[in-house]
Amino acid sequence: MNFILKDENSIYYEVKYSCDNSIFLKLGSEQFFITDARYTEEAKKEAKNCEVIESSNLITSLKNILKSTPKVKLVFDPYEWNIAEFEKLQTDLNLVPKKHFSKHRRLIKTDLEIQYLSTAAQYGKIAFHTFREYLTVKGVGKKEKELHFKMSTILQRKGSLNLSFDPIVAFNESTSKPHARPTDRRLANGDLILVDAGVKYNRYCSDRTETFMFQQSKFSSVKMSQKVKNIYDIVQKAHDEVILKVRSGMKASEVDKIARDVITKAGFGNKFIHSTGHGVGLDIHEYPNISAKSDIVIEDNMVFTIEPAIYIPDFLGVRIEDMVVMKDGKAKVL
Amino acid sequence: MNFILKDENSIYYEVKYSCDNSIFLKLGSEQFFITDARYTEEAKKEAKNCEVIESSNLITSLKNILKSTPKVKLVFDPYEWNIAEFEKLQTDLNLVPKKHFSKHRRLIKTDLEIQYLSTAAQYGKIAFHTFREYLTVKGVGKKEKELHFKMSTILQRKGSLNLSFDPIVAFNESTSKPHARPTDRRLANGDLILVDAGVKYNRYCSDRTETFMFQQSKFSSVKMSQKVKNIYDIVQKAHDEVILKVRSGMKASEVDKIARDVITKAGFGNKFIHSTGHGVGLDIHEYPNISAKSDIVIEDNMVFTIEPAIYIPDFLGVRIEDMVVMKDGKAKVL
Repeated sequence: MNFILKDENSIYYEVKYSCDNSIFLKLGSEQFFITDARYTEEAKKEAKNCEVIESSNLITSLKNILKSTPKVKLVFDPYEWNIAEFEKLQTDLNLVPKKHFSKHRRLIKTDLEIQYLSTAAQYGKIAFHTFREYLTVKGVGKKEKELHFKMSTILQRKGSLNLSFDPIVAFNESTSKPHARPTDRRLANGDLILVDAGVKYNRYCSDRTETFMFQQSKFSSVKMSQKVKNIYDIVQKAHDEVILKVRSGMKASEVDKIARDVITKAGFGNKFIHSTGHGVGLDIHEYPNISAKSDIVIEDNMVFTIEPAIYIPDFLGVRIEDMVVMKDGKAKVL
Repeated sequence: MNFILKDENSIYYEVKYSCDNSIFLKLGSEQFFITDARYTEEAKKEAKNCEVIESSNLITSLKNILKSTPKVKLVFDPYEWNIAEFEKLQTDLNLVPKKHFSKHRRLIKTDLEIQYLSTAAQYGKIAFHTFREYLTVKGVGKKEKELHFKMSTILQRKGSLNLSFDPIVAFNESTSKPHARPTDRRLANGDLILVDAGVKYNRYCSDRTETFMFQQSKFSSVKMSQKVKNIYDIVQKAHDEVILKVRSGMKASEVDKIARDVITKAGFGNKFIHSTGHGVGLDIHEYPNISAKSDIVIEDNMVFTIEPAIYIPDFLGVRIEDMVVMKDGKAKVL
């Protein structure tokens, strides 16, 4: 199959190099990486199994390569091209749209990819541990913004790792916003904290969420109010049931239903306002999407998050998230 | 004029709030901010002069609002929509494409925006100063990756500011890559360092590049090799001449030519492989683009970078970058 790619991670998957202005072309047994003068030096050293083409007009260069095979069918992903660029691209080419083409190629992870994702997940967990230790000693009185920065710093291990995404650190009512931004609010004893964060290892992402009560110096003895504990336990149960019951061969929508049923039965169905999880790889959001609408059949070597949640506006949100890999038909937590 | 926006910063400019899944609609005197359940709580509190619509299908909700005015012309930016989403959008709507529509709206900055950009630039400068002080004391032997992380940390001021973009910290030959990524290489006395970095203040970006020789404890006494000094002086001259000679009323291409002429005359024209500058605002790259191809006429209250450079592969790169605002017909360095 012949295809073109434009997205950075889509291209990285093919040639182990990418930059923010390039087109990748697979044409028969040949592969081309077209980029501008800012990147060609690095590309020639790092991009694998492809010819690097320097160009001040990537689309024109692409068409020049294709001139000798004018009728060839070229698969492209309509999510990777904006209207303005696509107008220039489409003339004289025989394009075949395939939505999320690269993400489908990346659906089943190789053992090496799983190793990278597992290592990323371990670094992520260590960061959460370090962050909690920091909180017990120095957390009280710190602003959300300061703790957001602190967690970011811990995750990056002095610059040796990059963030998977901008972390979320939220207290109390702010935890009810699934994508809360940090504020100047200061942490006090008894506050509920939600942290959602991850790192990249060899460009592969981790993703993890913990929700917990804060008390200076002694986490273990913190007493949650009964109402909070009730909600926490429901989310925990939904999370644990998915991990226990998910099987290769299930549809992703059935996996979503496992979590949703637990939460709905407990009376909070309308407070679980997103899907149960998403694939993770080079992108933080990949396939399979674990949602009520997803027909993808779960297979071994897929990697995805399990992150059920309950959000009650102006009160709290609880989300518990782990990454799993499917192995021998079952989920293994990374 | 009626229009729709999809880009986060385009939308922020209109309503002072945005998130990663929303559509903005201006219809006559009415304004709508359409987003999903994850963001509506925050949007209702923060978005100004608009009605917040919660939706699990933004495009369907947009069309519902437009049902009562089926023939209205709606401006959209073809760079803001990918092919897949545009297919759903275009049916039943009377869409008028305007490339970079929002960036053109944002071309002339208000005094308040200039104040934000100026403050961002000051914080940026302070970070460079702090970073240089750190280098003189602790720089020797540090990896590019460690210094990249250190500079990022300094810029963020304990989490009170966000980065404008992922900073560039490069030594010696790596400086010849305009967008170098940090490596494990360690800093030694006499190394050339290039740092390109900025922060956001109230979401407005700063952007600055310094290139300098490193010597432990005594920057002032560092002697550059004659060849490096020659290149540095040419870039400095190009930079200074633009700032001295740019005038409101000039075409952006004429501004680019000022820098390019200096470098070309010195024999390095083919080593200055990008444009002389770019507008800065909510986006790190806005209008006016100071390039040979740009017809934009420079006006008062435009803000842009001046960043001539010379890159010699496998040897070095020198780039010197400042932000300027046009005031009373002339450039004022921010």
